[in-house]
Amino acid sequence: MTVADARQQILAANQAAAANLRERFAAAGTLVVNLISSPGSGKTTLLATLAKKLAGRLRMAAVVGDIATEIDADRLRAAGLRAYQIVTGGSCHLDARMLDKALDIAAFGPLDLLFVENVGNLVCPANYDLGEHYKIVLLSVTEGADKPFKYPGIFSKPDVAVVTKIDLLPHVPFDLKAVKTQIHTLRPGARIVCASSTTGVGLDELAELLLQQVDSCKTVMNR
Amino acid sequence: MTVADARQQILAANQAAAANLRERFAAAGTLVVNLISSPGSGKTTLLATLAKKLAGRLRMAAVVGDIATEIDADRLRAAGLRAYQIVTGGSCHLDARMLDKALDIAAFGPLDLLFVENVGNLVCPANYDLGEHYKIVLLSVTEGADKPFKYPGIFSKPDVAVVTKIDLLPHVPFDLKAVKTQIHTLRPGARIVCASSTTGVGLDELAELLLQQVDSCKTVMNR
Repeated sequence: MTVADARQQILAANQAAAANLRERFAAAGTLVVNLISSPGSGKTTLLATLAKKLAGRLRMAAVVGDIATEIDADRLRAAGLRAYQIVTGGSCHLDARMLDKALDIAAFGPLDLLFVENVGNLVCPANYDLGEHYKIVLLSVTEGADKPFKYPGIFSKPDVAVVTKIDLLPHVPFDLKAVKTQIHTLRPGARIVCASSTTGVGLDELAELLLQQVDSCKTVMNR
Repeated sequence: MTVADARQQILAANQAAAANLRERFAAAGTLVVNLISSPGSGKTTLLATLAKKLAGRLRMAAVVGDIATEIDADRLRAAGLRAYQIVTGGSCHLDARMLDKALDIAAFGPLDLLFVENVGNLVCPANYDLGEHYKIVLLSVTEGADKPFKYPGIFSKPDVAVVTKIDLLPHVPFDLKAVKTQIHTLRPGARIVCASSTTGVGLDELAELLLQQVDSCKTVMNR
């Protein structure tokens, strides 16, 4: 087996595990959202804020991935969200088998919505299907407006792109219009939401979007 | 060959190529600096600013890595730095063979200082030696203070850690003291420089540091 073969084998095994996960989520009627971004774009803060906003309306939990530490799961638990931390120990992305195993251990029970917060990385997570219904990519205004075209692998896949830390826009050079154009070039029809977990801008829109998607997911299941 | 074997083989091949590069750089008397950070931490902007500051004092060039686009090399050239863009086409890091090939093509001629700007990624570049003398890791204040412990692979290796966008400190929650403690826990003795390419803070210190390192490199070569 060559190195290229080994890579193919890894991706094929992931695809099979993701297909099983998709069946598992469909049977449970759980909407699964995979959040992907650079380190520090605000995934955990956004999740914590959304969880508070949706509390009592949905049965929710989160699986979070990091190279090291339980910091993110602790932060989500402090925000009232049940959370399980996958410590990848070096792996630069979550894969479907890690998620499957994590869900077995976490035993969350029935869920309407499962958030999966991927390892902070704009490259590798793009290649690993986690059986999710919905991919959300985050890009903070502090990262610069050239990122979608520099990371086309991930920016050609999101259902929703969230431009985070929009409250910092007055303090940084960031061409929002150029970013929207790049995203829509790579992924026509992607919904783009500008949000700030600090000021609350955009969070109602995201919460509403998730509620609608949970409803669609249940409708499909009950057909 | 198993998948683990394939990974071992890739890393061993890189190690051999990096050893060759180290000889190549030693023979040429070139100091090589490998810059690593998340996407959007300010590597290119810092390089462009440093290049202007050191212009006329050193023979310099840069090799920059990105998944896609020539944006970074164009920006560096606009700042007067000779630059060669490696487009990895998907690979999440630069490796020693890519750099070797890039240097053959770029044919920069004699250099005192070669900057290598890695792909924006805090995970994978940590595992690939590029034959460099010096690793600089950047972390911007907008990324949050938990990053060193969350990415110990890379934060246990830098000679210098640059806390970038320090001008934005009044606008974001960022515990600078905690970050310094984490970095020094993982990498005792690492030099930490707070910098802003916008205000210029820290850039003289970095330029001075590079000049000293270039001198040391030449002294070693002439022994």
